[in-house]
Formats: sequence, C-alpha cells, structure tokens
Amino acid sequence: MTITLKKQATGSAGNPSLSGEDAEVLAVLEEVPRGAAVSKPYRLASREGHPRSTVVNVAGIPVGSALFTVIAGPCCVEGEEEIVETARSVKQSGAHMLRGGAFKPRTSPYSFQGWGNEGLRRLARARESTGLPVVTELLSVGDVESVASCADLIQIGARNAQNTPLLCEVARSGKPVLLKRGMSCTIEEWLMSAEYLLSHGNPNVILCERGIRSFETMTRNTLDLSAVAVAKQETHLPVVVDPSHGTGKRNLVIPMARAAVAAGADGLLIEVHPDPDRALSDGAQSLTFEMFRKLMEEITPIVEAMGRGLTPARLIQCGV
Amino acid sequence: MTITLKKQATGSAGNPSLSGEDAEVLAVLEEVPRGAAVSKPYRLASREGHPRSTVVNVAGIPVGSALFTVIAGPCCVEGEEEIVETARSVKQSGAHMLRGGAFKPRTSPYSFQGWGNEGLRRLARARESTGLPVVTELLSVGDVESVASCADLIQIGARNAQNTPLLCEVARSGKPVLLKRGMSCTIEEWLMSAEYLLSHGNPNVILCERGIRSFETMTRNTLDLSAVAVAKQETHLPVVVDPSHGTGKRNLVIPMARAAVAAGADGLLIEVHPDPDRALSDGAQSLTFEMFRKLMEEITPIVEAMGRGLTPARLIQCGV
Amino acid sequence: MTITLKKQATGSAGNPSLSGEDAEVLAVLEEVPRGAAVSKPYRLASREGHPRSTVVNVAGIPVGSALFTVIAGPCCVEGEEEIVETARSVKQSGAHMLRGGAFKPRTSPYSFQGWGNEGLRRLARARESTGLPVVTELLSVGDVESVASCADLIQIGARNAQNTPLLCEVARSGKPVLLKRGMSCTIEEWLMSAEYLLSHGNPNVILCERGIRSFETMTRNTLDLSAVAVAKQETHLPVVVDPSHGTGKRNLVIPMARAAVAAGADGLLIEVHPDPDRALSDGAQSLTFEMFRKLMEEITPIVEAMGRGLTPARLIQCGV
Amino acid sequence: MTITLKKQATGSAGNPSLSGEDAEVLAVLEEVPRGAAVSKPYRLASREGHPRSTVVNVAGIPVGSALFTVIAGPCCVEGEEEIVETARSVKQSGAHMLRGGAFKPRTSPYSFQGWGNEGLRRLARARESTGLPVVTELLSVGDVESVASCADLIQIGARNAQNTPLLCEVARSGKPVLLKRGMSCTIEEWLMSAEYLLSHGNPNVILCERGIRSFETMTRNTLDLSAVAVAKQETHLPVVVDPSHGTGKRNLVIPMARAAVAAGADGLLIEVHPDPDRALSDGAQSLTFEMFRKLMEEITPIVEAMGRGLTPARLIQCGV
Repeated sequence: MTITLKKQATGSAGNPSLSGEDAEVLAVLEEVPRGAAVSKPYRLASREGHPRSTVVNVAGIPVGSALFTVIAGPCCVEGEEEIVETARSVKQSGAHMLRGGAFKPRTSPYSFQGWGNEGLRRLARARESTGLPVVTELLSVGDVESVASCADLIQIGARNAQNTPLLCEVARSGKPVLLKRGMSCTIEEWLMSAEYLLSHGNPNVILCERGIRSFETMTRNTLDLSAVAVAKQETHLPVVVDPSHGTGKRNLVIPMARAAVAAGADGLLIEVHPDPDRALSDGAQSLTFEMFRKLMEEITPIVEAMGRGLTPARLIQCGV
Repeated sequence: MTITLKKQATGSAGNPSLSGEDAEVLAVLEEVPRGAAVSKPYRLASREGHPRSTVVNVAGIPVGSALFTVIAGPCCVEGEEEIVETARSVKQSGAHMLRGGAFKPRTSPYSFQGWGNEGLRRLARARESTGLPVVTELLSVGDVESVASCADLIQIGARNAQNTPLLCEVARSGKPVLLKRGMSCTIEEWLMSAEYLLSHGNPNVILCERGIRSFETMTRNTLDLSAVAVAKQETHLPVVVDPSHGTGKRNLVIPMARAAVAAGADGLLIEVHPDPDRALSDGAQSLTFEMFRKLMEEITPIVEAMGRGLTPARLIQCGV
Repeated sequence: MTITLKKQATGSAGNPSLSGEDAEVLAVLEEVPRGAAVSKPYRLASREGHPRSTVVNVAGIPVGSALFTVIAGPCCVEGEEEIVETARSVKQSGAHMLRGGAFKPRTSPYSFQGWGNEGLRRLARARESTGLPVVTELLSVGDVESVASCADLIQIGARNAQNTPLLCEVARSGKPVLLKRGMSCTIEEWLMSAEYLLSHGNPNVILCERGIRSFETMTRNTLDLSAVAVAKQETHLPVVVDPSHGTGKRNLVIPMARAAVAAGADGLLIEVHPDPDRALSDGAQSLTFEMFRKLMEEITPIVEAMGRGLTPARLIQCGV
Repeated sequence: MTITLKKQATGSAGNPSLSGEDAEVLAVLEEVPRGAAVSKPYRLASREGHPRSTVVNVAGIPVGSALFTVIAGPCCVEGEEEIVETARSVKQSGAHMLRGGAFKPRTSPYSFQGWGNEGLRRLARARESTGLPVVTELLSVGDVESVASCADLIQIGARNAQNTPLLCEVARSGKPVLLKRGMSCTIEEWLMSAEYLLSHGNPNVILCERGIRSFETMTRNTLDLSAVAVAKQETHLPVVVDPSHGTGKRNLVIPMARAAVAAGADGLLIEVHPDPDRALSDGAQSLTFEMFRKLMEEITPIVEAMGRGLTPARLIQCGV
C-alpha cells in the first residue's frame, strides 16, 4: 500500500470561496487513490476497498495474522534492573513484545512523568537482553526522533488519539504505530484517527481498544469489546486490546483478556510489574509475574478455540 | 437459603426521629441473617457470606453450574406458528430455553405492545411442542399472576431494573427471575436490585448483562463484559449475557456471544426470528435460524476451552 | 385538547401478518386526531400541531404561564410536625406548592422506603395548614388511588420514566402529572413518555429535567439545561427543573436554579429540610430554610429579566 | 502570583527507588509555595490558598471581574474580508474580543484544516481594523511562536485539554490561556490541566466549559453548567462558557448563553458567521450577525440581574 496524498494546503493562499464540507470532500476526492472505496469516511482504513487483512510486521512479529500477539510490561519504565527482569519474565511466560512508558501523560503535574530518554535507554537494554521488540508511547512532537530511534512500535495514547499534529508526525516517522482509542472517541472517530496515519503515508497501523468513559465506577473505564468486532469488520487493520487500562483492576484483567481473544482481537497489551503495589503508576491494574503466567495459560485454549495459535517464540529476534 | 426479612415498615407509625442512612442501616442490621457478611451493601447477593455459586434450577435446566445455558427466541411472540417453528429450530441448534415477549415495553405508545395473554398462550404451546422452558418478561404488577402461571423464568427488563414494587412482587411469585441490568445502572445498583429479590424471599435470581448507555452510536448499547467478571467475583449468582440488545446489530452478536462465554458468563440470551427483516420489533438485532446454528457452533469450542460443557439436550423436559 | 386514542389491542386476536414499525405507525395514524402534525414521533406533545403553550392548572396554580412556579419541600415526608413546619417556611419564602415523598424508590432494600399512606395523610395536613397544593411521587400501580386522592400533582420519578403500565395508569387518574426525565433517557425518549400520558387521555403533563447520568463524579447527576431549551421549543408542555437531584450538592442548587430560570424553565422543584444533616434521605442536596429564602431572593431578578413574574401568593388556595 | 516550580526531572538520572504516588507527592510538596493549601490536588488553582478571584487582563479587557466579557467570531477564519466584516459586526453588537481558528483540529484528515499562518495574518488585520483582541487556538508545539505573536489569548481546545507537552509549552509563552474542558474530562481533571499551566509559571488562565460527551444525541455535547458553579467555587480562576460547541445547534445558543450568565460564568465564547450555511466548519451552530445582536440584547438583563455589567466598549483598544 503506497499512498501519497497531497498534504492539506494549510497556510496556502487557497480558495476562500470554498463553502461547506461537501466542497472539501469533493476537493479531496481527486487526491484519493484510484479504486479505493468511498462510502465510508475512513476510506483507506475501510475493508471495502481493501478486503484483505493487513499484517503489520513489528521487528519480525506479524500482528494481525493467524498468530496471536501478546505485549507485556510495566506501565512505566523504572530502574534498568526492573525492566530487564520484567522483560525476561514475560518472555519466559510467552510474551512477544515488551511495553514500558518512558514519557508518561499524567493527570497531575505533580505525578511522576517518566524517565524520558533515560527510560528509552533502559528499554533498549531490556531488548538487547531478551530480543523482545519494544513498544513505548510518544507524547510530544519534539520527542519523535528519539522515540522512533528506540521503539519498534510507537504507541499513541488515549489522550492523544485526536492530537492531529502528533498523528501526522508519527506517520512520517515510518515506524509502526499502535493507536489507542481515545476515552471518549466513538469508533468512527477512532478509525478517522487511523485514517490520519494512513493518509499521511504510514500503512503500519495497529488499533488498540482500551476502554471508554462511562458512568460505571467499579471499573476505571468500560472496556468496549464490541468495538473490536466492529473494527475487525469495518477495517483491514489489526486490533489489539488493553484490558489493564480497560478495567483498572488486576483481578479483572484475566477474564477480559480471554474475552478479548474470543471477540476476535489479534493481540493483547498487558501491564505487568515485579511488585505492583510499589509501582510508580497504575499499580492497581498491573499483574504480578505469576498472574501474567496464569493469563498466558488461560488464553491459550481460547486462542486455539478461535482457530489461531500464539506467535512462536522463535520469531522473537530483536537485536539478537 | 431460606431468608425471611421483615418487610420494611412502609405506612407504619414508625419512628420519625430516625436520622440518616446510618440509622436505617443499623435498624436493618438486626434483621439480617446471622453470619452473613456485611462489608458489601448487597449482603445477601455477596459471595463473602455465601462462597458457593448458586445454581438456579429452571424447570430442570441448571443455570450457573458447569453446564452452559443458551436461551433463544424472538424479541416478541408473534403468530403461534412462528413461535412453534422458532422453538423447534433453536432447540435443534442446541438452545435450552425459549424466550419471547408477550408484554413489550416500547418507547413509543404507537409501537406494537405485544399480544399479552394471547402471547403467553402461544408460548405455552411452543413449550408443549418442544419441551423448552419459557422465559418471558413481566412488565406490570397486575400481570404477575398470569405471567407466573406461564413462565418458567420471569424476566425483569432493563427499564424495570429499579422498579422496586415490581421487584418485590415478582420475588413473592416464587418463580426464578432473570434480572436485566438497567441501561444506566452501575454494577452496584444492579446488584442492589438483585438484593431486593433476595431479601424478599426469592433466592432464584439470574443476573443478565445487556449493555449500558454510552456515547457510542455504532452499537445500540455498550455491552459491558467487565460487569460479568465483576458480578461473578462479587456475587454467588449466575450471570447470563444478552448480546442482541447489547449490540443491536446482528453481525456483532456472534463475536460478542463468544466473548461473553470467555468472560465467564453462565449463559446467553439470543434473539432469533424466522425472518428478522419482518420482525415486529428488534429485527436489526435478531439472528436467522441459520445464524443461530452458526452461533452455537462458534461458542462450543470456547465453552470447552473454559472447561465447561453445553447443557445436554436430555435435561430439556418441560411439559414433555 | 380532548383526545381519545383507542387502546392498543394488547391481547386481542390481532393481525400477526403486520410487519415492522411502519405497519404499526400506519395503523395508529388512523387514530390520530385530525390536523395533528406527524413529522415528530411525539405527535401530541409536539408544538408543530399545537403551537400555543399548554398551561397546567394545579389546584389554582398555573404552570407554564408567564408566572413562574416554585415547588419546595423535603425529599421524604418525615414527622407531621416537620412537614407542617417546612410547608409554612417555604410558603413564607415564596413557594407555591409543597413537595414530599411518601413512597420512596430506594436503591437499597435496606434503606427507608417512606411512610406510605401515613406520609400522604401528613402531606394533607400540611396542605390544610398552608393552602399549598401537594406534589408527591407515585411508585406503584397499586397505590394510584390513594396517591391520586391526596396529591394535587402526581410525580412520576426518574426510575419510572419508562414504566409504561404506570404511565398509562396515572394518565387515567385524571390528575396533573409531573414527569421526570429518566436518568438515561434521551430527550426524545422523555418526550415519548409524555406522549404515553397524552395519548392515554391526560393533557395535564409537566416535564421535569433532573439531571442525566454521565461520567462526572463531582455532581450526583449532570443537569442538562439544554434539555429545557429543547423541550420548550419542541413541545407545548411546561418544563420545570429539579436542581437538587440535578446536582446532588446543596451549594450548587442556587446557581443552577438561577441558570434554569434563564434557560427558560417554567418552574423549579427544590428540596428543603428543617435540618438537612438529619434528613432520612438526600440530606446532602437539601437546602435549609434560610438557604431556600436566599434562593427565592436570587432567582427573583432573573425571573424578572426573563420578562416573567413569580406566581402571586394569593393564587395559593388549596383547601383554604 | 509568581510561582517557579522546578521542572519535573524527566530524563534525569533520578531515584528509581521512589515508589508510589505518595512518594511523588511528598517529593513535590517541598517545591510548593509556602502557605498554599494542599487539601485539593489542584493546589495552585484552588480557592483555598487564594481566596480572591483572579482577573486575567487580555489586552486591556479584564476577564473574571464584575464586568462580563463576550468573545465572538467564526469557528474558522476564512477570507480576510469576511473576518474583518465579522469583527466589525460583533463589535457593534457589543462583543469584546474576536475569536477565529487558523489551525483547526478536525476529526477527518480530509476536512479543511484551517488557513494556518495566513489565518493568523487575517486575524491581525481584523484586530487592527476594530481594536478587538484576538483569541485563536494553538494545536501544535511547533506553532507556539507564531500563534503567540498574533493572539492576545491562546485557546487550548477540548481535544488537547490533556496534551501535557502543549500545556507546558503554552504556559511558557507567557500569553493568557483559554483552557477548554476536554469532552470526557471530569471537572477535577480539567482543573488539573489548569494546574499544569499554573505550575509551569503562567497565572493567566481562563477556564472554558464547552460541553461533555453523553448519550444524548439531540445536542452535539451536553453543556455542563454545574461545572461553572463548581469551578467558580473551587478555584479563583475566571470561567467562560461556549454554548456554540456546548449545544451544536444555533437555536439553543441564546437560551444556554442566558443560562451560563445566570450560573455565574464570567464570559461567553460565541460562534458567529456572516453566512452560517456556507461556513467551512460548524455552520449548524453559528449565529448570524442578527442573532448575535439578539443574544447580546437577551443576556444584558441577566448580566444586570447578576449584579454585574457588560465590559464597556471603551476598554477595547487593541492596536488602536
């Protein structure tokens, strides 16, 4: 899929007599690749014009294929020792990639905001030590270069799901992108954010459902697994699920991980911490090493019941 | 479990100097069964004081056991021929009970409100013809006798989830009750409604998650499968899931049925219609006979992966 | 407005070949009064076919006119002395009707459920003593006679906004009805509930916005004042606002009461208690007598800025 | 208020043995200004430690004083002629500032994204021609210099309400900031975003309520006026309301503008367009010049009923 849409003429002299969305859409249609379906607003993401499922290759791990992918690690990268230990443990239990935040979006300016570039270096060392590809979040346009030079898969978090300048910038980086659904994004808006990535030239987009905001208070968010089924039907993109943020509670992660597999997800994103009660962030939703092992054990028969298999460990080869 | 709480002294001379919820709670504690846990507001529903899972016997079908239960049928009972035909078809595909509304709660006074008692008679004939126990909704205190005389399991719908006089009345009927979560009920409020049933002497309560209201518009409701995991952990009651109302779209029912099984549900409630496009209500979310057959086929390996089995057909024996 | 729709043929032999909502609507259209507009689903409530605003006469108090109405009183009727004292105080501060619950819908079966018929008798005594018409909630079809014999205006609460049998029954009582919006009802669904009342022969319907459920936790509900503006534009019915339930916090009631007036509401429903911290329910949102006096003082200039006046005290004449 | 918090040590060698939020909070407390209240997480925004209301001076217009402020203009700056014409018209009707977007966040990559820097130049010309200070949105860290050099008040839009790098950057620009509430931000999260601005050295923060996401579909968002009352009580910051985005419908803007004034808002943000049906964005919610004149006429008596006055035109002096 090689698409080169002309960039929107922001700042040009332009034609101020253009009026209304219809005119805009007509104007853009000329730029759309021949043969693409146009009945959906997310025309590049849509399955209509692209019936075959896209498989995104993340450093040798195929996401969106018949092989199921599991990404695990701490919410936030802490010490080097901890991240290396965590990488080893989750790899041993069957994880295929390592997650960990170096730049953290926090509600409070007084909360720990992550170790930044030092966190990226620690992630790189954990990769060297285990071969696990690394997933980490990009928060700011200014960090795109350093994050892209470390990450195998760049995460755009829920708070930035509609941060269009960041979407455009990460698209240009060329790296695969894990796009989380915003906590109040409709499915259509989420797919339109994916469309930003696709239309700016990056076909390697993985969607991630992580719960939406509802009135329920027993869970941190309301994990919307219907969105997985919708996204798989409407688009050709891989879809993974984050039951850690989706529920916010450790003891709900395993059942919702199983449910995500059965809903048709292509992978999982799981928070794991050596000592959740001492985690610098999101401890309440992090699994212990032992619980993660149990999660892998419990999803395996469901993955098989879905006619799929877990990605074999031999495909893990990052920097090894 | 034989609990007889004294009824609240509504209308009695009472003590007007009582002040605040604390006083109320203290007052009621005296009436709580000895040994019951009290750290949860839903003290009878809570697993704390009742660690063993309750199995509700619905005319021979055990709901909440290791055996998985499937309830299927039209939203609304239409002609006698249609309901008998539907009952036969869903039984053949593996369903264990027949659902069908005789009294329908409709948003508009101008929409079809169900065939009422004639609908109940048609359900009874479908039961005679197939042996399937019958699930039907009770809308009004005035109909409790006629509904209880027909139904094997009485449904309290989402709109009536906090209709406390109806809850008290249906509890007194002695029939097993399927309690749907209200569309804006928190999990705790839903469990408190179950507590109304339990505290009014009816231990045969089955919880039903059917989607909550959110901002998402691509689905009719947002099916909250986390609520299944929470309800299974917090209470000893069986939990079933209605992915038909939960999604409102036929092509999402099968994936969400699979996900419900994997989340730990004890059963499913599925809308099936001989000709969904001509259904008097909820056609968009009803499966055809063929799709229902496919649903049973797709959930079977997930049920097994969960270490359970489908309830065997030989237990179906209603009126046969 | 004298409308007599034939009752829906629930339970009749009917025509099972009817298919879909279209057929239903066509069938009902024959029963709609000549000349009524039909472009809205709430055809009797709609302003289209009834451009003049309806004024509902509640025991001499005109609701929906240029005169603004204030209803005040405790959430729950407690002792006779308290309710009489409250009635006198709110009347002195300028209230036009007395509210108070005798039958209370409570989330927990262990919470105080109201004094029932004894509560109604206490309300009647407060009316005798002050001349204030009485507003009280009807929870159950079984209580319609006793509530209708006491109340001047019957309240249908948020939890029963879509309890259609109760709507039909209260419509038949002939008494004016205060219809609260359900906590997850869209504006259209709320208007359809009003349509149940109108189409079952009761033209005396007052709409009441009381907050909807959202993710916000600093307020008990999210008071949706846009719904007031929509309801005033879309329908000919009076609209009042309940900022007590709408916010759940005493210190937000006065600003939201002012805002409700400015949004175009025809009246207010305010919880007032002689000693809120000792109230049997909803103390946190109840005003003291002094705060209610201040509320009246603060809304007066806004009522005047809207080109209206407060209903004069001389119209209060109930049983006097 | 001159606060210089040390920046969070992102990327520093740091202390990886820190564990949990408590440790973080303790660490930061040392950096908090002496005497500030700490019982609220938004300690600098809180009224507790800063009882006097902050008045933000925007090019001579005092926002948050007894004088009420009205900001008006198109969603999106279009041609130079249109923006100058609009500025003149809204000034004549009584507006105190001109709004207009040069950089537009759009759900679809195929929608018009604004004229960018050329849009800023057109805004500057409208300011020269009328003296109205200019409010425009900053979308990207990369544009902070050009936006800050044009705008008198920089808007952070709802989609960026938790874009923390952008908040930090705009804080450093030194310009007053209009901070919109995110569409799924709780009030507390919104105040925490304000805290980012304050703790990064910018005391000139104006809060803007613009509607939250709910299940209601008749309005684009649900305008939460309770949030105005809460924010005025909890913080010392000015609060303005945007009923245009809050409702999404032209005919609801005037009633909700009145309600916002009565709820205690310090100002309004109103979309006005010379020909709304031909607007490049948000036409459905834009007022005509004539409707805006009527809005000013209708809010005037409410402003006075609140014991305030409209800011006098003689204070408008930008570049004149």
